[in-house]
Amino acid sequence: MENSNQSSSPADRNVFVPHAYPEQTIDLGEVTMNYAVSGSPDKPALLLIPGQTESWWGFEAAMAILDKEFQVFAVDLRGQGRSTWTPGRYTLDNMGNDLVRFIALAIRRPAIVSGNSSGGVLAAWLSAFAMPGQIRGVHVEDPPLFASEVTPLCGPAIRQSVVGPMFALMSKYLGDQWSIADWKGLLAARANDPSPIGRMLPMPDEPAQRLKEYDPEWARAFIEGTVAKNCPHERMLAQVKVPMLMTHHFRTIHPESGTLMGALTDLQASVARDIVTTAGQPFTYVDAPDAAHSMHAMDAPRFAKILSDWARTLPA
Amino acid sequence: MENSNQSSSPADRNVFVPHAYPEQTIDLGEVTMNYAVSGSPDKPALLLIPGQTESWWGFEAAMAILDKEFQVFAVDLRGQGRSTWTPGRYTLDNMGNDLVRFIALAIRRPAIVSGNSSGGVLAAWLSAFAMPGQIRGVHVEDPPLFASEVTPLCGPAIRQSVVGPMFALMSKYLGDQWSIADWKGLLAARANDPSPIGRMLPMPDEPAQRLKEYDPEWARAFIEGTVAKNCPHERMLAQVKVPMLMTHHFRTIHPESGTLMGALTDLQASVARDIVTTAGQPFTYVDAPDAAHSMHAMDAPRFAKILSDWARTLPA
Repeated sequence: MENSNQSSSPADRNVFVPHAYPEQTIDLGEVTMNYAVSGSPDKPALLLIPGQTESWWGFEAAMAILDKEFQVFAVDLRGQGRSTWTPGRYTLDNMGNDLVRFIALAIRRPAIVSGNSSGGVLAAWLSAFAMPGQIRGVHVEDPPLFASEVTPLCGPAIRQSVVGPMFALMSKYLGDQWSIADWKGLLAARANDPSPIGRMLPMPDEPAQRLKEYDPEWARAFIEGTVAKNCPHERMLAQVKVPMLMTHHFRTIHPESGTLMGALTDLQASVARDIVTTAGQPFTYVDAPDAAHSMHAMDAPRFAKILSDWARTLPA
Repeated sequence: MENSNQSSSPADRNVFVPHAYPEQTIDLGEVTMNYAVSGSPDKPALLLIPGQTESWWGFEAAMAILDKEFQVFAVDLRGQGRSTWTPGRYTLDNMGNDLVRFIALAIRRPAIVSGNSSGGVLAAWLSAFAMPGQIRGVHVEDPPLFASEVTPLCGPAIRQSVVGPMFALMSKYLGDQWSIADWKGLLAARANDPSPIGRMLPMPDEPAQRLKEYDPEWARAFIEGTVAKNCPHERMLAQVKVPMLMTHHFRTIHPESGTLMGALTDLQASVARDIVTTAGQPFTYVDAPDAAHSMHAMDAPRFAKILSDWARTLPA
């Protein structure tokens, strides 16, 4: 990692690359949000939310399909891509309210939302807490409901999932706002990980492009639990106000360590479903155990078909 | 305390009394906010934010003066008065974003904001983090900047102020959502307080009206620090984007215990001023060491004059 990549602001960092869609920004008050739009404004609005260590352009392949049927808005959250970094302020509530403002000021009409991983948790957040009338329905793509909390209602906590220890290493060796940026130290720590799980994830010699664009303080906010400290997932799900589609991708429990390899367990998905249906909302469950965590990136046609088919069932 | 007063929702609690202005509510998505309006819509909009253990009607005397010059909106925050209770979710960021939505949906034009105590911290929050163009200027009336945090940048923390131990007792004996409601236990604990400070504050045989309307989980959020965990005051103040008026009321340090009796120390006010002026915003300081913490309630004419005189200096 070059020292020149260290900065307290993404705007000062020379790490970005061109993409297939033009990018633009909007001032939301606290943050300036970076995003891309594709598709005609006479189509239904679709908001796409990336996962942790991803930027908006992870949706490029999906956008190329979905923009026939939707006006697609793909965003960088605070701490992702070219959007503002906000030290000390990475929470579901702050990220969710950024999106409330984005819908109010940029989309300016009711939207369907699809978010992957942490972005799926934020899609659920929007379905519970957005301003009245902003959200038509939400697709939570393999969301770590409960499993990304430090003291979840049920099932494995983040420390007991494959990503928890990985986030801990990223936080330690990369540092908030890349203040450490010790990629070699991270690789060495991974190579010596006593758990076979820790050594399973691929780790290239250089940080991936999407990781370069990410504020590692996100990882710390998740492992320390501050991200959801004031947003227990069960309280959020109990307030869901629109239909929800969950796609549930590859998951298994590593038999020796009990580690969750995947976003959430069957139990966690089932409890989420129970809470949402008890709240009176339709819950559509698509079991896709053969799908990668980021189906939208790894199999965009399948992702787009599932999302589009469900979206057509939503009230206008 | 009657058991009938225990409820998970303020709407179910038969504790309310009539007031001089009609009340109304608005759905903001997560919460339904209770508020009162007075004054003509052709006057500048003024948003009034109560302090902890207060409801909107603490501003009644001030409204009767200010509504000649402003259209005045006085609100109950989540967990105050008739607004929704939100267990687990009392944070500056959530309360602040409720107000962002209130300005967008109910006031619907740029507003001047005045908040007392914790409401003053929220006025500062709005000056930093509201949507672009929503706020013309903020009056922070005796706000516990730094002094309401558990690990403040400078000066006494909440445990070292007279209200900290009081909030701890309220949290313990009243309980989240009045789940304990042991007023006699609270009185007994106060009477046996080893600190002379703890025995100084008046404590009537029955809870005051404004306290009945308050969710004691607020107190817990403050003493445990979750309310500002992801909103360090110095980061907030560094992003102030509009002029700020601070009125600084009675304060002293109890010499034997070091306890702050008051909202914030001179040092804390001075550091706040430095940060805001470094951010490029005008900062007006009115020293009022003879004023009660709630000047707006105890001396409404003085409060209204200071606020009105300053408001006239603001750009339109």
